[in-house]
Amino acid sequence: MKVRIIVASLLAFGATAAAQSNEPIQPVKPPAQINLGMVELGKKLFFDPRLSKSGFISCNSCHNLSMGGTDNIPTSIGDKWQQGPINAPTVLNSSLNVAQFWDGRAADLKAQAGGPIANPGEMAFSHTLALGVLESIPAYVREFKQVFGKNRISIEEVTLAIAEFEKTLVTPNSRFDQWLLGKADALNGDEKAGYKLFKDSGCVGCHNGPAVGGASFQKMGVVATYKANSPAEGRSAVTGKDVDRFNFKVPTLRNVEMTYPYFHDGAANTLTEAVEVMGRIQLGKKFTADENGKVVAFLKTLTGDQPSFALPILPPSSDKTPRPTPFGK
Amino acid sequence: MKVRIIVASLLAFGATAAAQSNEPIQPVKPPAQINLGMVELGKKLFFDPRLSKSGFISCNSCHNLSMGGTDNIPTSIGDKWQQGPINAPTVLNSSLNVAQFWDGRAADLKAQAGGPIANPGEMAFSHTLALGVLESIPAYVREFKQVFGKNRISIEEVTLAIAEFEKTLVTPNSRFDQWLLGKADALNGDEKAGYKLFKDSGCVGCHNGPAVGGASFQKMGVVATYKANSPAEGRSAVTGKDVDRFNFKVPTLRNVEMTYPYFHDGAANTLTEAVEVMGRIQLGKKFTADENGKVVAFLKTLTGDQPSFALPILPPSSDKTPRPTPFGK
Repeated sequence: MKVRIIVASLLAFGATAAAQSNEPIQPVKPPAQINLGMVELGKKLFFDPRLSKSGFISCNSCHNLSMGGTDNIPTSIGDKWQQGPINAPTVLNSSLNVAQFWDGRAADLKAQAGGPIANPGEMAFSHTLALGVLESIPAYVREFKQVFGKNRISIEEVTLAIAEFEKTLVTPNSRFDQWLLGKADALNGDEKAGYKLFKDSGCVGCHNGPAVGGASFQKMGVVATYKANSPAEGRSAVTGKDVDRFNFKVPTLRNVEMTYPYFHDGAANTLTEAVEVMGRIQLGKKFTADENGKVVAFLKTLTGDQPSFALPILPPSSDKTPRPTPFGK
Repeated sequence: MKVRIIVASLLAFGATAAAQSNEPIQPVKPPAQINLGMVELGKKLFFDPRLSKSGFISCNSCHNLSMGGTDNIPTSIGDKWQQGPINAPTVLNSSLNVAQFWDGRAADLKAQAGGPIANPGEMAFSHTLALGVLESIPAYVREFKQVFGKNRISIEEVTLAIAEFEKTLVTPNSRFDQWLLGKADALNGDEKAGYKLFKDSGCVGCHNGPAVGGASFQKMGVVATYKANSPAEGRSAVTGKDVDRFNFKVPTLRNVEMTYPYFHDGAANTLTEAVEVMGRIQLGKKFTADENGKVVAFLKTLTGDQPSFALPILPPSSDKTPRPTPFGK
């Protein structure tokens, strides 16, 4: 009896799993092959505002892990309250992206991590100055040595460690993934209908794969022109090709309920608005209010387990540590 | 045999403990009588930048729990990068303070918590606007109802919850406290000598009790005038009495290795400098380099267990949530 039930369950599960494996979206997998020592070091660096000129801005300031890995404002605040040119993309699941930044100018997380530190509009520091700070802090020197086995710290190790931490920032176990993995009642009727609309309308053409996006560059404004609040022109800044103007990396829709406002200029405050605009300018489709609501209901099932870890405690500066300069100069 | 050893240990421990109980500094105790639901809610609020106009500044921005509950810059950065008038005091062990703020203008943590939210130079919001944000977020509404049993959120509950969380931010188990509690080898010779100097020189006149400070207001510049970088005049702003000019709350020295820079104007970058200045202007004493080093060694034994908890995940805004205004207006 017991055995028969188990066999029946397995068969049922197998059948469901087989069906779901044909879907254009795949579940997010927990991170594998992670160097834990590097992760712990990278976590500290991610939260350390001493990597900025002011001593006030850390990676977590704009990629806030309490808020879906974003800052939830249209464009970010940089050193001296400078207004950034573009919406901060979420760091969650960013290891699944084909490249980093909206224009893909960084090949991977390691290449990305050094950017904001030295960007005069963001953390406004330099790699040399950041290394000077880290090398003046005995506990960091010890931890780098322990993890990398070297006596000197270079930007290579700093960005490697931050990237390794960021690889852990995946969000498995969303209700949608539970459904993909065979839990038929993980989604309600509206959510399933929303997913069907999402597929039938062509959204999955760009928003597919485990990250539901992040895998390609696409033009913002295929059917109708998009009037952006941002001067950014996207991929053409990297390739130099006019054909790439307004091509941006397709953002991941994982945890999209948490990563508002939307688009590279952060102009859409709500999912309702974002779905309306995307339908209109990318697909030439006008969703009814009912359809829009169902797509939004589906999108909210993509919120997965958020990263869970103890707030890192940073090693104190030493007497030799250069002090930050938040004001003046 | 076994019994005899235990009895001997108990006697030895009792003897040590008895000696240590006469010390002017007492151990920090773990928090008691805490409402855990309120703590969890308050923790979210403490980390939530939506309590600021910009959506960028939270309590944790200036009282960073990764960095000893401070921002480690001389004076804090407020809305639109305004330069604060005074050094952000640590939130660690602040429940032990006689009153809050350097001038003691708030009687307790609850009274303090509402201040920065509405201060135009800090979070630059208003209580009304902050409540509007919180009431638009369904998960917050539910959590407030669960904790306080009321249908509406008022600033009363917001500040109560933040204060309850802050009560948990005590730092027991420093090496100094281990020594106070009877572990004779918790301090080395220099550290013990430093503590003796700290007592014999009169530092304990103000820096005493479980927080090693925080219990009284004292004049900054008793023996010699202190030339401050800050316009703050201290306690007189509260009492209106000229005799209270330049009277400030004595800061706690718990975790002082992490809470640099020092003094109400954040002018002293290092403990060496702070000890030198304090000796000179408060006690009329010139510490030798050797003495200064020993006092600093003692002060570093006051670093206790830092708060350890999972980074809170904040409930997302709803379509109705008023959006922050980081730029313009």
